[in-house]
Amino acid sequence: MAPTDTDDKSSPFFDEDDAALLLIDHQTGLLQGVENQDTVSLRNNVLALAEVAKLYDLPVVLTTSRAEGPNGPLLPKLNEMFPEVEVIDRSLVNAWDDPAFVEAVEATGRSNLIMAGILTEVCVAFPAISAAQEGYNVQAVLDASGSLNDRAEQAAMSRMEQAGVDLTSWFTVSSEMLKDWTKEVAPEQAAHFSERTGFYELVLESFNASSAE
Amino acid sequence: MAPTDTDDKSSPFFDEDDAALLLIDHQTGLLQGVENQDTVSLRNNVLALAEVAKLYDLPVVLTTSRAEGPNGPLLPKLNEMFPEVEVIDRSLVNAWDDPAFVEAVEATGRSNLIMAGILTEVCVAFPAISAAQEGYNVQAVLDASGSLNDRAEQAAMSRMEQAGVDLTSWFTVSSEMLKDWTKEVAPEQAAHFSERTGFYELVLESFNASSAE
Amino acid sequence: MAPTDTDDKSSPFFDEDDAALLLIDHQTGLLQGVENQDTVSLRNNVLALAEVAKLYDLPVVLTTSRAEGPNGPLLPKLNEMFPEVEVIDRSLVNAWDDPAFVEAVEATGRSNLIMAGILTEVCVAFPAISAAQEGYNVQAVLDASGSLNDRAEQAAMSRMEQAGVDLTSWFTVSSEMLKDWTKEVAPEQAAHFSERTGFYELVLESFNASSAE
Amino acid sequence: MAPTDTDDKSSPFFDEDDAALLLIDHQTGLLQGVENQDTVSLRNNVLALAEVAKLYDLPVVLTTSRAEGPNGPLLPKLNEMFPEVEVIDRSLVNAWDDPAFVEAVEATGRSNLIMAGILTEVCVAFPAISAAQEGYNVQAVLDASGSLNDRAEQAAMSRMEQAGVDLTSWFTVSSEMLKDWTKEVAPEQAAHFSERTGFYELVLESFNASSAE
Amino acid sequence: MAPTDTDDKSSPFFDEDDAALLLIDHQTGLLQGVENQDTVSLRNNVLALAEVAKLYDLPVVLTTSRAEGPNGPLLPKLNEMFPEVEVIDRSLVNAWDDPAFVEAVEATGRSNLIMAGILTEVCVAFPAISAAQEGYNVQAVLDASGSLNDRAEQAAMSRMEQAGVDLTSWFTVSSEMLKDWTKEVAPEQAAHFSERTGFYELVLESFNASSAE
Amino acid sequence: MAPTDTDDKSSPFFDEDDAALLLIDHQTGLLQGVENQDTVSLRNNVLALAEVAKLYDLPVVLTTSRAEGPNGPLLPKLNEMFPEVEVIDRSLVNAWDDPAFVEAVEATGRSNLIMAGILTEVCVAFPAISAAQEGYNVQAVLDASGSLNDRAEQAAMSRMEQAGVDLTSWFTVSSEMLKDWTKEVAPEQAAHFSERTGFYELVLESFNASSAE
Amino acid sequence: MAPTDTDDKSSPFFDEDDAALLLIDHQTGLLQGVENQDTVSLRNNVLALAEVAKLYDLPVVLTTSRAEGPNGPLLPKLNEMFPEVEVIDRSLVNAWDDPAFVEAVEATGRSNLIMAGILTEVCVAFPAISAAQEGYNVQAVLDASGSLNDRAEQAAMSRMEQAGVDLTSWFTVSSEMLKDWTKEVAPEQAAHFSERTGFYELVLESFNASSAE
Amino acid sequence: MAPTDTDDKSSPFFDEDDAALLLIDHQTGLLQGVENQDTVSLRNNVLALAEVAKLYDLPVVLTTSRAEGPNGPLLPKLNEMFPEVEVIDRSLVNAWDDPAFVEAVEATGRSNLIMAGILTEVCVAFPAISAAQEGYNVQAVLDASGSLNDRAEQAAMSRMEQAGVDLTSWFTVSSEMLKDWTKEVAPEQAAHFSERTGFYELVLESFNASSAE
Repeated sequence: MAPTDTDDKSSPFFDEDDAALLLIDHQTGLLQGVENQDTVSLRNNVLALAEVAKLYDLPVVLTTSRAEGPNGPLLPKLNEMFPEVEVIDRSLVNAWDDPAFVEAVEATGRSNLIMAGILTEVCVAFPAISAAQEGYNVQAVLDASGSLNDRAEQAAMSRMEQAGVDLTSWFTVSSEMLKDWTKEVAPEQAAHFSERTGFYELVLESFNASSAE
Repeated sequence: MAPTDTDDKSSPFFDEDDAALLLIDHQTGLLQGVENQDTVSLRNNVLALAEVAKLYDLPVVLTTSRAEGPNGPLLPKLNEMFPEVEVIDRSLVNAWDDPAFVEAVEATGRSNLIMAGILTEVCVAFPAISAAQEGYNVQAVLDASGSLNDRAEQAAMSRMEQAGVDLTSWFTVSSEMLKDWTKEVAPEQAAHFSERTGFYELVLESFNASSAE
Repeated sequence: MAPTDTDDKSSPFFDEDDAALLLIDHQTGLLQGVENQDTVSLRNNVLALAEVAKLYDLPVVLTTSRAEGPNGPLLPKLNEMFPEVEVIDRSLVNAWDDPAFVEAVEATGRSNLIMAGILTEVCVAFPAISAAQEGYNVQAVLDASGSLNDRAEQAAMSRMEQAGVDLTSWFTVSSEMLKDWTKEVAPEQAAHFSERTGFYELVLESFNASSAE
Repeated sequence: MAPTDTDDKSSPFFDEDDAALLLIDHQTGLLQGVENQDTVSLRNNVLALAEVAKLYDLPVVLTTSRAEGPNGPLLPKLNEMFPEVEVIDRSLVNAWDDPAFVEAVEATGRSNLIMAGILTEVCVAFPAISAAQEGYNVQAVLDASGSLNDRAEQAAMSRMEQAGVDLTSWFTVSSEMLKDWTKEVAPEQAAHFSERTGFYELVLESFNASSAE
Repeated sequence: MAPTDTDDKSSPFFDEDDAALLLIDHQTGLLQGVENQDTVSLRNNVLALAEVAKLYDLPVVLTTSRAEGPNGPLLPKLNEMFPEVEVIDRSLVNAWDDPAFVEAVEATGRSNLIMAGILTEVCVAFPAISAAQEGYNVQAVLDASGSLNDRAEQAAMSRMEQAGVDLTSWFTVSSEMLKDWTKEVAPEQAAHFSERTGFYELVLESFNASSAE
Repeated sequence: MAPTDTDDKSSPFFDEDDAALLLIDHQTGLLQGVENQDTVSLRNNVLALAEVAKLYDLPVVLTTSRAEGPNGPLLPKLNEMFPEVEVIDRSLVNAWDDPAFVEAVEATGRSNLIMAGILTEVCVAFPAISAAQEGYNVQAVLDASGSLNDRAEQAAMSRMEQAGVDLTSWFTVSSEMLKDWTKEVAPEQAAHFSERTGFYELVLESFNASSAE
Repeated sequence: MAPTDTDDKSSPFFDEDDAALLLIDHQTGLLQGVENQDTVSLRNNVLALAEVAKLYDLPVVLTTSRAEGPNGPLLPKLNEMFPEVEVIDRSLVNAWDDPAFVEAVEATGRSNLIMAGILTEVCVAFPAISAAQEGYNVQAVLDASGSLNDRAEQAAMSRMEQAGVDLTSWFTVSSEMLKDWTKEVAPEQAAHFSERTGFYELVLESFNASSAE
Repeated sequence: MAPTDTDDKSSPFFDEDDAALLLIDHQTGLLQGVENQDTVSLRNNVLALAEVAKLYDLPVVLTTSRAEGPNGPLLPKLNEMFPEVEVIDRSLVNAWDDPAFVEAVEATGRSNLIMAGILTEVCVAFPAISAAQEGYNVQAVLDASGSLNDRAEQAAMSRMEQAGVDLTSWFTVSSEMLKDWTKEVAPEQAAHFSERTGFYELVLESFNASSAE
């Protein structure tokens, strides 16, 4: 099933009520293949992106590639965050080739898809291009994904651009969902930025300290 | 109000009498979130860009995001440079979603918009894409803006390109306004380059010294 | 002869039964001209890509540029891997200008061409653009190719993108051929990843050791 | 009071029962001055180092530089970790010039001092050199400290080396305390590495998953 | 005068008999503004590109921006190489705005223009975009040009791409002119590569030495 | 005249009343030779260091190398800052070989010398090593100096270390002079940090804004 | 047992008949902790170093840290290369604290020790410093070892230098053993360089090809 | 023969009448092994250093390692510059082990030796350490030498420092020989800087142009 006709995409931005998050192959073995982003930052960004879905109640699809072999299990923190989501384990490289995955996406009822995964050039680029070809609006989250080397990532970025996939970052996704600092979620969003960006904790604590005097 | 019909954009370049400068969220707290450009250079570039507006009498719009909180006040030097400009403080993330901001832009009467802000991937990219979608010609000034990390900036550049936003730098903007070294403003422009580029002070002072002998 | 009409390209991906590999000027002299990728990694990537062709029985075309002069002979390991392939030595810079090369490509019967070579900006970009112009689907493998300097490579990437050439990496090509981990070739593919990616040997051996206990 | 005579330093290594941790000026304002290490990693490393002190019951000294002004309060997480430690606020730049600080150091009864702080070139280097001159054995933890720019850090490293200060990293300190994986603390230490290094979580979870099968 | 109708551009490549070289503002003062390429390499590349014009008898246009002021004279080696070419000194920033420059371009009778200059983001990008808009085929030589900073160069690359300008490098231009190693110019071309690439001198001399034995 | 006997150097730190600042060959021509530090930052750091001398009334010696030739005049801002200091122009490469320079140093009555200059590997390293050999305590300010390339700077750092010269940065020098935030100069020092470090302006203005509320 | 008195170290170089190779904790889990060297290169260098021991018949000591847990087994290729060497598995962090390890070292009868391991800052630095303290001559092979981050490695290098440990690389070790290209091992050494350096295969094959003509 | 007793080294600097230049293994094959410096710059620096010897009539010793094999002949430009110097071809890795080399050094009558070579970690470090051990004063020219990788170079720098070898760059050597801009050689020295540094040509030509007006 392709995105419905009623989904006319007049806005270039995603909203919290029309988007879903797809996390693809963030497995403990595959994560070790990321050579062009340090592990501490990458893990921080992956968790930060997952937390955006929690904050804005985005439907989430989780999938792994042969998690019982050397690729390893899903990052356990992701299981803990989404205990209700069944992880779809695949033998197919392109998640979009797997009917169970596509069904899970369709079940979200959303035609705006936010994708991240390991490795960018395969596990993100392949389904992102497939979904875009079928009419979905797709954003690929670069800093919550990672690559074997710089050229592989640059090639993946180019190929996704050519296929109409938008590139983004977790902080951008979060800001795009927030839209207005008067929303109820705003204090939680500020706390989230504080926990995950590094700098926001500093300005927030400095502010709190000096305001309190 | 969208750009008027009479604004046919046959030239790919902006002129001093058809452009406006929009500075978005250059706040003391947010500036600390820029991780991929050193603070001394970034501040130099932001002030250099603001000075271009002074040199060429460009209308200026200033806006902040909840300046009374941890995001902090506008960089004070910007207030000093444009005392007559009222700073529009917003709760909306995308400045273009804020009617007061759009009205201020429309009040400039210009359909060629030069935008810079902190962070590039949100505060610049969102309104730049929105404005381009409404028919404005938009330039985003990369080196007077800044990002949380390299991937966030690359994604923002890609997304703005796809939306038809032109990318530029403060020195390019300044040269695009100048157009002719016989204009009255030329000596002031040379002094501006001398103050802000580093290298131009060196060649100018070397030249003055050797010519004077 | 241009690609046949029956080759409608509805899928954005290449398959093992519709693609050919063209290795262009991986010669011992020219390889020394690659200044922006270290020799150990580049050699690893070139051999890794060649091994993909072996794994998936892709037709292979090998060509050199005046191999009897200082450009040097083809990397001997490539001769060893494809003893049945006649190496086409050329005086023409753009391999696509050489009828013998084009004939060899046509003889593969494939309209999806995977190209790598030394240097990227000439030996890959020229025939890639020519082939794309004639209607072939072309992928250029960045990390099994190399450039004189960074700007030369960036320019080549941009020019190939504009001409409709897709950019990729050897690991991406291999994954695109594999498609399904239940295929017969899967264990060999895993061994190949283990030998050539560095990280996969580590996770595989760790897995084997702990599973065996 | 200088280190006691009985402290003969025949071993080049520190032990958990002879060392103290001194955290100097990890304040929310000053941390923003670190331009050559990203904030997410730096914060991770500072907390990782503090947790080493918890794991091995090292005496801790905390000090700040005019915490009520723009330098900002101590990173709140450090207060939470060491609620029993009184933070010594100073006006003196070199903490070693402050009798309260030296007394707190002496009160630990340890002559092996592990120091980290912000900025490396001032807040770490000055007291490290002073303490070494008075006969203490000193280690400066580079990756839990940070500098205004690369040259400032290189100069600080050189100057500390010349003064007999040993350079180290938080992971090295932790390993130096651990000494033996059969110690009771070992499982906690493994969990600590898992939380703070990035990679150790991955190998540990992969191991647990495959061993469990 | 726009390019003539008879210039149908069916080939994506330039030839030695249909292209001209335009060197824009390679002046001793402006060259000092290039902050993102080292001076030794940049000078090597500029001279290498100029030598391509000599090798292939390309018509050359030379222009400067107020050469009697601090921008400085044209790099003297360029005057020596092209004594018959009158250098067009301008007050207009965009060389294409200067009728004398456009006339000189038209006088070459070529509609395929190879441009390089200092700074890339102004002196190359502006006339490259203008010429492309008027129907010329334009290539911008990145490594024989230079920028004030990385973002300025990236923005210029993006803007030229959007305007249909092809990006290239001096080595690519040279190879694109050569086309066939059996041409009479080939030995001179090999000597040129030997003098300017660094690596080719090494492989050539090694070859000569071992062949002679 | 060597440093006097009464100058026993028990402290490893310099004080405002025992140190002098020597600025060597910060000339508009030579500054263009610095290839491993961007001009905007270098100029900022040189002026920042000079301002330290103003803040703490350090005696200043200024010298140039053949300022009437291509090396160019002293950076004019330095003349403006120290109108009472006569600039010693030399033909001797090592300033310490010039009796006028040594006399000027002796005339300061200080045996603790802070040196910066262009280029580090010659104009700083040579006199720094000579002065150290004669018994002076010498600090070389790396970030207010600059080099032709990275290896030249590393070699200079190594050679100065071996000769007993301490390496430092302008911010370190300033902090070493300040010593105590209760000194009268402290507010001026804070303003200086605010103007020259980038980050301190941000934390200070954020603090002022939030405290004022 | 300390090195024997007869081992007077008049030469600053190691010889094939007086040196031993100690490989420490090159385990599949720990290798994933190396964040500042890419895995393909690191693996290449580790194997290259091990092959030096084979070429020159150096006694080899192999040790692991709790190889049955997540640290993983020794890199299997090392087991294959040295089937006769028993791997000493330890719980002690510093290998030199383990009597079995020290006995194995003593059993080699060599007082010149070449060490490499993962991670440099712990598994190499600790026993290297311990062995040097006991009078052994020690070389630490940097590029066959690896670190958690750059600062950790720089600190380790500094600390080893201070303790009298020499730093080296695998290619240097190999050349130091070879000493004379007329030795019987020379052709094997050339083949080894060809296999492991990348560049030497290229020059060797170019030479062979051109010499053969 | 060791350096004569009369050579008391009271100055830390070399002079033109007491130094010799030793160029070691700058061969066309070995030069391709330098992976951490680009070939154009390296070649420029090697020739620049050789030209210093010509300018100051330094005795020169040239040596190669098995130049008739794949290591290749000496860089031909060096033969052209020193036609009267016989190149000593060796089979011994450490040039200092070769009596012919040591005799050639002794024949220069100089005890201050300036060494450069390919690769730094072997061909420079080994004889530099040997010569220093025998009492020579040795400078190793880093930027006219080159290494297989960064760690190899850092290790070599550390090891040479420990052995008392001074590190330097070609520009530093040249300045150390010049000493006084009133010497007869000064105009030639200026021309040499102009040809080899890049920047000096620019400031010199700017100066000449503006002075001439």
